Amino acid sequence: MARQERAIRTRKAILEAAGAVFDEHGYASTTIAMVLERAEVTKGALYFHFPSKESLAQAVLDEQLPFGTVPPHPCKLQEIIDITFVFGQRLVGNSLLQGSVRLTVDQCAPPGVDHTGPYRQWAELLVALMQQAREQGELLPTVVLRDTVELLVGAFAGVQQMSRALSGREDLGHRISVLWSHILPSIAVPGLLLGLDSKPDRGTRILADIELSGY
Amino acid sequence: MARQERAIRTRKAILEAAGAVFDEHGYASTTIAMVLERAEVTKGALYFHFPSKESLAQAVLDEQLPFGTVPPHPCKLQEIIDITFVFGQRLVGNSLLQGSVRLTVDQCAPPGVDHTGPYRQWAELLVALMQQAREQGELLPTVVLRDTVELLVGAFAGVQQMSRALSGREDLGHRISVLWSHILPSIAVPGLLLGLDSKPDRGTRILADIELSGY
Repeated sequence: MARQERAIRTRKAILEAAGAVFDEHGYASTTIAMVLERAEVTKGALYFHFPSKESLAQAVLDEQLPFGTVPPHPCKLQEIIDITFVFGQRLVGNSLLQGSVRLTVDQCAPPGVDHTGPYRQWAELLVALMQQAREQGELLPTVVLRDTVELLVGAFAGVQQMSRALSGREDLGHRISVLWSHILPSIAVPGLLLGLDSKPDRGTRILADIELSGY
Repeated sequence: MARQERAIRTRKAILEAAGAVFDEHGYASTTIAMVLERAEVTKGALYFHFPSKESLAQAVLDEQLPFGTVPPHPCKLQEIIDITFVFGQRLVGNSLLQGSVRLTVDQCAPPGVDHTGPYRQWAELLVALMQQAREQGELLPTVVLRDTVELLVGAFAGVQQMSRALSGREDLGHRISVLWSHILPSIAVPGLLLGLDSKPDRGTRILADIELSGY
């Protein structure tokens, strides 16, 4: 294995271990030693990639957005819906993502770590997609893009947390579907409503398609 | 001061101190000593009321629902709207409530503390009010009470957290107003929509009325 490839693998193993430990224990109670033990890498390798707990937390936070990647869809509102379901579905099984989300929503912001980053990055990404949706005539004229987007981001954060607390995220697909069924009539033009797919298993189906197509 | 009254005051001082400390440091990093120092009560008094950190956290959680108390309203949907605004407004300035909410949404559930209690208690309370709203003909026939209520509880939890992270809860009234403007058209009968008040300053106005009337 080439040196660079090995370094990438080691970094990935550390981030996955860190995500799992942050998810289980939260930022304050996590120690580098706990991550080391979980990642099964040397202390030197860990400090080579991440010189501090802060930098480890920041890296885990920075990994969050790519988990919302979905195939582009001609209808941009459907693409936004898809992002929420795919992100939710990935959240169920991925400990790096779980740790990243916990660091975002947990309120103790350690000095040197910007835990509000994902809120703002999600908002930027979704405002851009909403802008495209607007240009394509998908949105009601009453929609204020930033208000709608920040509501989606905040509500999603809370819904996934409640799902985690009450069912270990088993009912997350259903809860995301309920979120959309309440919000879509206020933002989508009526002609679009029936054609949008926000059924609870939307995430599972998209992920299956992605695997088949190798997207 | 009678002994019982003094005990009630001491208990209140301890809970307020505990709420502030839990809010600042989270459950795991909070110690009884930190609460003692903040509450300015004797160790004996604290242990008399709360034999452990768990029992202190449980009591802080149990104090949450009364902060949603509002004057009854003939329109039950308006009463539910009022609860969210008043709760949000109280959340801005009350450290006991801030600590209680943090314990609810923080994901590390310490053994012996049921941090999911408020989620379920809010849902029960709001389902009962929604049931009355339904009987009074305020709701669209498509509304599934429990789905709508659990969405409200989860979305509110997330929206207040995002508001805290991005603006120190300064924009919470606006965010609650945006939440309602997106959800009401999906749940209220059209004839009711224009008469419902979900403006950002709704909480401030109700609290001012409560103070004037001594409710």
